[in-house]
Amino acid sequence: MPDPFVVVGGDAAGLSAASKAKREAPERDVVVFEKGRWISYAHCGTPYFVEGVVETLDDLLSLSPDEVEERGVDLRREHEVTGVNTDARTVGVDGPDGQFEQPYSDLLVATGAHAVTSPIEGHELDAALPMHGLDNAAATRALLMDPDADHLAAVGGEEYVDRERVERCGALEPPETVAIVGGGYVGVEMAEAFSAHDLDVHLFQRPSHVLESFGDPIAERVEETLRDHGVTLHLDTEVARLVDDTGASTGDGRVAGLECAGGTTLECELALVGIGVRPNTHLLEDTPVALGESGAVAVDDFGATNVDGVYAAGDCAEMTHAVTGESTWVPLGLTANRAGRAVGTTVARTDHDAGDNGDGSGHGGVSPADREPVGSIAGTAVTKAFDMEVGRSGITDLDEARSYGFDPVKETITTRSRSGYYPGAAETTVTLVADRDSERLLGGAIAGTDRAAVRIDTVATALEAETTVGDLERTDLAYAPPFSPVWDPILTAAKVLRGSL
Amino acid sequence: MPDPFVVVGGDAAGLSAASKAKREAPERDVVVFEKGRWISYAHCGTPYFVEGVVETLDDLLSLSPDEVEERGVDLRREHEVTGVNTDARTVGVDGPDGQFEQPYSDLLVATGAHAVTSPIEGHELDAALPMHGLDNAAATRALLMDPDADHLAAVGGEEYVDRERVERCGALEPPETVAIVGGGYVGVEMAEAFSAHDLDVHLFQRPSHVLESFGDPIAERVEETLRDHGVTLHLDTEVARLVDDTGASTGDGRVAGLECAGGTTLECELALVGIGVRPNTHLLEDTPVALGESGAVAVDDFGATNVDGVYAAGDCAEMTHAVTGESTWVPLGLTANRAGRAVGTTVARTDHDAGDNGDGSGHGGVSPADREPVGSIAGTAVTKAFDMEVGRSGITDLDEARSYGFDPVKETITTRSRSGYYPGAAETTVTLVADRDSERLLGGAIAGTDRAAVRIDTVATALEAETTVGDLERTDLAYAPPFSPVWDPILTAAKVLRGSL
Repeated sequence: MPDPFVVVGGDAAGLSAASKAKREAPERDVVVFEKGRWISYAHCGTPYFVEGVVETLDDLLSLSPDEVEERGVDLRREHEVTGVNTDARTVGVDGPDGQFEQPYSDLLVATGAHAVTSPIEGHELDAALPMHGLDNAAATRALLMDPDADHLAAVGGEEYVDRERVERCGALEPPETVAIVGGGYVGVEMAEAFSAHDLDVHLFQRPSHVLESFGDPIAERVEETLRDHGVTLHLDTEVARLVDDTGASTGDGRVAGLECAGGTTLECELALVGIGVRPNTHLLEDTPVALGESGAVAVDDFGATNVDGVYAAGDCAEMTHAVTGESTWVPLGLTANRAGRAVGTTVARTDHDAGDNGDGSGHGGVSPADREPVGSIAGTAVTKAFDMEVGRSGITDLDEARSYGFDPVKETITTRSRSGYYPGAAETTVTLVADRDSERLLGGAIAGTDRAAVRIDTVATALEAETTVGDLERTDLAYAPPFSPVWDPILTAAKVLRGSL
Repeated sequence: MPDPFVVVGGDAAGLSAASKAKREAPERDVVVFEKGRWISYAHCGTPYFVEGVVETLDDLLSLSPDEVEERGVDLRREHEVTGVNTDARTVGVDGPDGQFEQPYSDLLVATGAHAVTSPIEGHELDAALPMHGLDNAAATRALLMDPDADHLAAVGGEEYVDRERVERCGALEPPETVAIVGGGYVGVEMAEAFSAHDLDVHLFQRPSHVLESFGDPIAERVEETLRDHGVTLHLDTEVARLVDDTGASTGDGRVAGLECAGGTTLECELALVGIGVRPNTHLLEDTPVALGESGAVAVDDFGATNVDGVYAAGDCAEMTHAVTGESTWVPLGLTANRAGRAVGTTVARTDHDAGDNGDGSGHGGVSPADREPVGSIAGTAVTKAFDMEVGRSGITDLDEARSYGFDPVKETITTRSRSGYYPGAAETTVTLVADRDSERLLGGAIAGTDRAAVRIDTVATALEAETTVGDLERTDLAYAPPFSPVWDPILTAAKVLRGSL
């Protein structure tokens, strides 16, 4: 029997890989080490938990530890993998019963990402929270509740949650004014979440628009919606420090305000910081496993690193971009699930008794035809602010497109989501970008209140297929008065963009 | 100056072509002959007009005659083209001021389609109406109103509507029970429309399911929804005749019931017959212009018929199917608009003074590179019954797929439309069909209450790009809890289907 398939990290990528490998090759041992208590949690649901649309943390758990065990996976929570020896094919593990070496036949690094708080000072004050992970979400929600409430019962996640932290945050007086630092999609979602609690919500964004990767016209529609719902936007505004009621950024105090580089100040009793995430690659520092330019783990089309038997997937790994063909790092949920599942399939098909297959792939025991591709990504993302839905896919920034050698042309149109005579038609804004010479579609974005977000899937599908704008314009999309005008907004945008090429 | 570009038919294809040609080549004369009074009407909106969601017929007119004239198009309503002489390049026209011959340089036949009523007897009784065109919609809506109401004011379309018919139908007692004969998408939409008027609605369908082209699992969800809303379905039931209160199918009486081949009878005071449409090709009978196997006009990739200078587009013409590459006839609104616009572009680029361009295309004066393709179709269609949205695209019927040489495999799944923890997640049913050998996606269909219809655009886009099921499974579709589970329902279906190949 070969050594186990060892997975580091018990979230989307790790558990997808473990489950798939065990299902395809039930005779293989599969061990998952997760350093924390939580497994298989829906990060993307945390704003809706804070909002209250999702009742408890338990609702955000896709799989319980028991369910993972029932799949035959040996799941070890609160086991931190502290080192990898790629020559010996072992990992060092630090668990509740001490340290040990675990041999592996194949290793999947699925360590995820962590929130960045630097260079903002004062992020360790009480009621200053990073926008990342379930414990922070629990702490945020506890903070919004009455100090006398039963915070633990309300937030749920009883077996997993950092109880001490929930109780400490819950004991604080609820805020009246909240500052969100960072206007990415989680920041925007949190603005909606806090508004639902009737708070005075302020969103600070260093660039001139929220949702930078969606482009200005889309961002402006979101900003209008946020303002309509009472959210105060501080754009082009860099937060320098969070301070307590003495003006200090250090110590044990509670956040009482913030100070911006330009001099703006705000009194607030809760600050949520979401200014970026970085891949967790610390584990690989002293190994020969190569990182890519992005700082995430470099992998091939099958999720394999440069070291035989070592894979990486999910928020810690790069992926190939569907438009550029280059490696990129865009940590998102579907990517993690898909790549993890693909690695699990490939590992299940690997016959370690067969030795190196001699194909020069550097990965012994599995023939190229048996490896499952992790696929490419287009950076497709959707979110909403109240009733304003937005989506984006591909390369929409002109400078970014030029950096990959394209000669990009961009058009933005606003048109109706339905036949004009059918009630509920909503102004829908579509941006499309194409390369002038090849006429290839490079990216797109959309905003609108009527089924806008899912329409980005048309763009995502066209990008993966390397469609030209002309082909997109002639695509036989759905038309019926309740759902679309004769020319779907994306077709109209394609028509206009083609006219500009 | 060359002779005018002559267009026969003033609806979607004809006016798209005329407008586009005039915009691209303002110096060219463009004449549109329309035999009726209506132009540029939204057929697809008629059920919603009968329902009352759309207030008047005027709302369904995209362009007024004045607006067409402002574009520089010479529009002649109530002018019927009665013959085509392709040698002399003239058409015979019968107008209010008599008959005349109109020379053309290029001719577009955009004569549309007509409703079939045969073999059902009694369809000429009062209150027995075909499901086609605005005058029938006006008559239907007038029939639902109180006899004392101002029917003409209510239905609108004052300049165009068949006033005598509206008044005659309006004078009849409103029905209590209505029979819809035919369960295609218009039949289903009309069931919703009549239900809004609190009528006892019966829908008769000869096949065993409504919406045959969507496949059984999708149809069953629609049928369940219709029944939940009180519509009585008579499936596997062939209507033989409509009868008046004496049991006669001829004469001047009003419909009082219907009789089915199997013996079923129903008393009803309104019968709407929608058992199919056929292309209007009568005009071309004595010309060398070839029809295709479907009975519609055969055209090439640019909408050109086999005769130099003669084009056809819209509901009277065939199109190339994106999946089979064969000619097919699927009369739908986007197809007509797109093909008409393409023909208008090609005609505008045709230089008749240059004579035959000698490229063997049979179409003088325009080089192949300057011709605008009409594109292919995938038979994409969407509709809804109350809150149940459905869509389909491509080839979903196994026998049909086999007839084109495919070895089809079909899977149907039902999954949630959103993350399970997010409110509003709705059971969504997806059917996908692929070819076993090539793994190419052949078609798909979807049903669900939460943004289901527009998701078919993903399938339509994938079909046009000749995507494999594996590629579809790895497409980077949008994910966010309010809009989709991590694996979009279409991705889940692709995953399951790929497992069956």
